[in-house]
Formats: sequence, C-alpha cells, structure tokens
Amino acid sequence: MSKFSSQDSDSSKNGSRVNSESNTNEEYAKGDGKLGFSNHPAQLYKILPPQIRRRIKALKKLQVESVRIEAEFFAEVHKLECKYNQLYSGIYQKRRAFVTGETEPNDQDCDFTLDASLDGVAEGGNEQGFSPFGAVDANTKGIPYFWLTIFKNVDLLNDMVEPHDEPVLKHLTDIEVEFLENDPMGFVLKFVFSPNEFFSNPVLTKYYEMRCKPDEEDPFSFEGPEIIKCKGCTIDWYKNKNVTKKTVKKRQKHKTQGTVRTVSKTVKNDSFFNFFDPPQVSDDENEDVDAEIQAILTSDFEIGHYIRERIVPHAVLYFTGEALEEEEDLEEEEEEDDDELSEDSDENESVVLCKDSKNNQQAPECKQQ
Amino acid sequence: MSKFSSQDSDSSKNGSRVNSESNTNEEYAKGDGKLGFSNHPAQLYKILPPQIRRRIKALKKLQVESVRIEAEFFAEVHKLECKYNQLYSGIYQKRRAFVTGETEPNDQDCDFTLDASLDGVAEGGNEQGFSPFGAVDANTKGIPYFWLTIFKNVDLLNDMVEPHDEPVLKHLTDIEVEFLENDPMGFVLKFVFSPNEFFSNPVLTKYYEMRCKPDEEDPFSFEGPEIIKCKGCTIDWYKNKNVTKKTVKKRQKHKTQGTVRTVSKTVKNDSFFNFFDPPQVSDDENEDVDAEIQAILTSDFEIGHYIRERIVPHAVLYFTGEALEEEEDLEEEEEEDDDELSEDSDENESVVLCKDSKNNQQAPECKQQ
Repeated sequence: MSKFSSQDSDSSKNGSRVNSESNTNEEYAKGDGKLGFSNHPAQLYKILPPQIRRRIKALKKLQVESVRIEAEFFAEVHKLECKYNQLYSGIYQKRRAFVTGETEPNDQDCDFTLDASLDGVAEGGNEQGFSPFGAVDANTKGIPYFWLTIFKNVDLLNDMVEPHDEPVLKHLTDIEVEFLENDPMGFVLKFVFSPNEFFSNPVLTKYYEMRCKPDEEDPFSFEGPEIIKCKGCTIDWYKNKNVTKKTVKKRQKHKTQGTVRTVSKTVKNDSFFNFFDPPQVSDDENEDVDAEIQAILTSDFEIGHYIRERIVPHAVLYFTGEALEEEEDLEEEEEEDDDELSEDSDENESVVLCKDSKNNQQAPECKQQ
Repeated sequence: MSKFSSQDSDSSKNGSRVNSESNTNEEYAKGDGKLGFSNHPAQLYKILPPQIRRRIKALKKLQVESVRIEAEFFAEVHKLECKYNQLYSGIYQKRRAFVTGETEPNDQDCDFTLDASLDGVAEGGNEQGFSPFGAVDANTKGIPYFWLTIFKNVDLLNDMVEPHDEPVLKHLTDIEVEFLENDPMGFVLKFVFSPNEFFSNPVLTKYYEMRCKPDEEDPFSFEGPEIIKCKGCTIDWYKNKNVTKKTVKKRQKHKTQGTVRTVSKTVKNDSFFNFFDPPQVSDDENEDVDAEIQAILTSDFEIGHYIRERIVPHAVLYFTGEALEEEEDLEEEEEEDDDELSEDSDENESVVLCKDSKNNQQAPECKQQ
C-alpha cells in the first residue's frame, strides 16, 4: 500500500508530479509579461485595484489572529511532550541500567527477534567479539562505549569530538532530558558520567530556553517554538586533565639584549566539552550579535534540539546505525525529487513562461503540530 | 538574537560545524579498517561478543515499547489538531466571506499595517488595477480568483492545473478541512464552488484515511500518522463540460473494401479534476500495487497533506507569495549547508578515514510532535 507520512515534510516537495504533460500557462504568462513582473508571479497582488487590496489587508489581519491561536496550539503540544517525557522515563531508566551493567536483562527482557545479527556468533567469524574502542570480552559489563559509539556514528555530534575527547566520553553513561513546561519554556540536557579521572562532576548540564510567541513585526514567520538561548555549566576538571585547554610554548627574544626565553601560554583547545561553555550574548534582542558567535549558537541550538528530539528517544537505533540509514534513505528520495524537478524545467523552458521563478519553491518548514 | 526553530528539521543537518578542525578518528578508523567493514561504521555492533549483543536485544525490545507510547502521543496530537481546527473555524468563515464578497470588511477589519503594498495606488502605476486572470475594477466583489491564484502560485498544485481547468477553478470559493478524530483517523478536503456552467456539485470532496500504528514487522520506521488511503467523489458534469475527458477522432480504413470512416472516441484528459478520481487499490495490504499507481498515490497523498497542512491554514500568504518566499529561503539555507558539507569532505579526504560512508547521513525525518 502506498503511504505518505504526514510527518514527512521533506517529501512535501514539488518534485512529484501528477500530470506529466506540461502546462503552457498562457493566460497567466500574458498577465505577467504585460506588466514586466519578472519576480514571483505572486507579486501580482500588488497591482490589484485598491478596493481589492483593502480586502487582502482584512485577510492578513485574520492571519495574525490565526498565528496567535497557532502559538497556543504549539504550547499545548509542548505540554504533551512534557507529559510523555514522564511516560518514557521508566524505559529510559531500564535502558541506562542495561547499558551500564547495573542490571542484567533476563530472557524475557531480551525477547526480540527482528534483528538476526544479534544472535549467534559475531559477524566476521571472530567468536570472541570485538569493539573498535577498547578491549571487550564475555565478561565485559553492560554495553561498553554505548554513548561514545553514538557520538561517533552521528556526523552532527562526531564533528565536535576530538581524539582527546574520546577517553572522556567513554565515561558517558546516559543523556537525560528534563522538559521545562513554561516560564520559560525549555529543556535541559543532562550528560551523566561514571566516576573518572578527568572531572569530578557526576552530571554536566546544558540548558535551552525556547520562545513560543510570534514576532510582533513579522508574525507570519512563526513556525512554532524556537530555541533562543542556552547555558552550559562549570566543569570541575582535575589538574592537567582539562581537554578544553592546551599549553603552547613560545620563544621570546628580548628586543635589545638579544636574550631568548621560552614562555608557556594556555589557550583554548577544540573539544566537545566546549559545548558546555557556549558564547554568552546580551539579553537585549536589539543588540547586534557578532556573525561568528551567531553561527556557533545556531549550530549549538541545532545540536541541542537534535539530541533532545532524535538521539535520546532513539539512542539504540543510533548505536546500531538503523536511524542513520533511515535518514539517508530520506535524503536520497529528496535528491531524486530534485533531479526530476530540474529535468522538468529544462524540457519546458520554451513553453512555460512563469516557471523559472517558481521552481525554487521548496519543502515547507518542518512544523511541529 | 540567534535562534533555532525546533520545528525546523530541515536545518537539523550535519552541515553546520562547531569545530572547524578536522578529526582524524584514528582510533575508530583502526577498528573499521581491521575488520574490513566498508559500510556504516555503525555496523560494528554486529561484531560485539554475544553476551553484549544480547543486551542490545533488550534495548531494542525497550525501543518497541517506546514506539508504542510514541504512537499514543501522535494520536493525542491529532486530537489537539481536531480541537484547534474548530478554533480556527470562525476565522475561516470570515475569510471566505471577505473572499467571496459576501461581507465587506469594515475599517477595523482592515487595520493591518505591516504590508505597505496594500495601501495607495497599485504598483506599476496602473490606477485602475489589474488581474492576470480577468477583468477587475473598483466594483469587483470580494477578492477575485483568490484560490485560482494560489493554485497558480504553488508548484505542487500548479503542476496539476491544465489551461482548460482555469475557467473552472475561477469558481473555487473555499477549501475547508474536516478532521476525523479516529476510527479511522483522517481528514476530508472540501472544495467549495460557486454555481457554474461546468458541474452541479456545490462541493467536491477528497477523503484521506490515516494510520497511526507502528508496523509489527518494522516498528522503528514509525514516524507518526501516515496517509494510507484516499477517496474522491463523483462530479456531475454538465453535458460537454467534462474537462477530464476529451474526444479524439480516428480514421479507420476497412481492410478489404478500402473504405474510410471517421470514428470518435472519448479518452481521459489531463486535468486537476482527476484529483477527485484517484486510482483505487485493494484493501489487502499484501497485494502488489502497480508502480505507476503507487507513484500517483504517493504524489496524491503528498498534495492532500500539503493542502491540509500548509495551504488552508495560510491561504492568504500563498496568495501574496509570502509563504513561498519563506520556503525558498529555507531551501537556500539547506543548499548552503550541503555546499559546506561537500567542501569539508574534500579537504579532509586524506585524514578522515571513516567519513565517506557517514557523510550521507542527513536531516531527520520531519516529525510531528
């Protein structure tokens, strides 16, 4: 049976066509050509008689009202998410216990038959088994390097991980999400670590604040809650264990005496753990934010959202890679759509006069609803 | 202030990077190379010792439980959507009245100041004003060709519209959505027409049925409700007005006598109105569906979803083109991300051993939540 997931906005593209015959758009093209509107044909509303444009103002005012109701809808969805996060908590606790080895699953716990590669001897014929991250054998507790493996599997996360972070991330035993219902709306990611030689904190936290209110000046850009702010935490590194700093040595020559000495300087080091020290910006929305800082924050918000939304709820599927394969499949479908699209516009170039400016129209924003 | 909309899964890509330095992945690459797993590094879980793989089975069983709860969450979100559709109904009624001219908005209704192009004389200097679809002037009622303009502006819809459909679509005065809460979950699109010379139906309907249940055999592919079925309606065309049929004339030559006669044959014609006559498939899920029919249905479901989800709630913004511009902006951002991604992988080719197979990982499916 053919199906279309209503969640799958990536497929809501104009690539698929029902009718293969091209549409000459004669009538429309005529209007367009006549007035020389080379941009969006949609801009044509601007040339309607004033009496009609006045009525469009009324529709736009109604739309502002509609957006306000939409914001309430999204707030209710967020409330539902808070409620369901509680419902998942028992599952998450069990997962953590199995991963750390605190609890050994019994036969009923392991009654899962949909993945044959989890039965019998290891693939590749190595009976002992193997892990790329360190020694494992039949006596290894839990699922070793579970979260580190996820970090390495997911590009968005792996891009933050430096080789010197890996020994630290081997101690990551869980990521929990706490939802904040309102005042302000937000969520906290809690990275739980086993006792280790790097820092004393049992948990590192990253706080995200969201806003679920249309912009007064630009109400129609509203698409649901957005992350607007984040805050990290202080990591209590043990001496000489801070991977976010490095010492560089520099030779200094005395200008007049000619003597040379070596000075040590501590500088910032690339590390995943900089994730807990994001750039701080002023609360004043009108203050300009440096473009580089802006880019770091955009990326940070994206990562925080992805961890909350994809990684934590589906961790085992990122560990096995299944979730990645699905994302790839989706991407391939998207590319096929794009190909189809560009072929179409080539073929129709001579007859479809209004098409070029519209071919850019693409997938709707992914909307939480 | 930098922001990241949590709805915007299109941006949840691996294109943005926090650390610009490349990661050599030495440790990971070693494991990968050693065993010759050239595909997903994630496949490495298959070579773990059996005792550990057994625990992964336990996690997967937990994940099945998690997916079941997720399905309940989505059902509750759908319920919320039903509730909110009621809340929007007053706004939709007013919109329809302004569009048809049934009600003339008063000054308070038109108190909207965020679009200067709606005030003063028409752009292009034509004081009278102009519409590409037909004569308009100061005395024209309502907002003429409102829905036809939307159909022409949105590629996904415009691709279905043939020149002979346009005179019919000029009579489209509203699209309503009725939500069906459950048994089965679904929605109905109602296309409302003013009295016209083409058909007698005041309303044409398209019914969509959804399923909100994980597949027993493939539970992890569940991403929320999906459209699984649709049904159109019979259009009562007036004589010789059916745009979905055309008459073709064919010369037939008698084989032995050599006489020639002309026969007329009625065949299917490309038309938007074929949207109300989708291919019917068997209810038996295991029965094979023809690939062409499958493609038509996938496209149909996508269009139905798009009309419900984007067009109806934001109609005026598709009329003015603003909604299209936003979708384009998003698409451009996406392309920029892709560019960045491919540059990165080129640069790092020599050092990043495990990267190639992972660079394909892409945006998460857009998830309703």
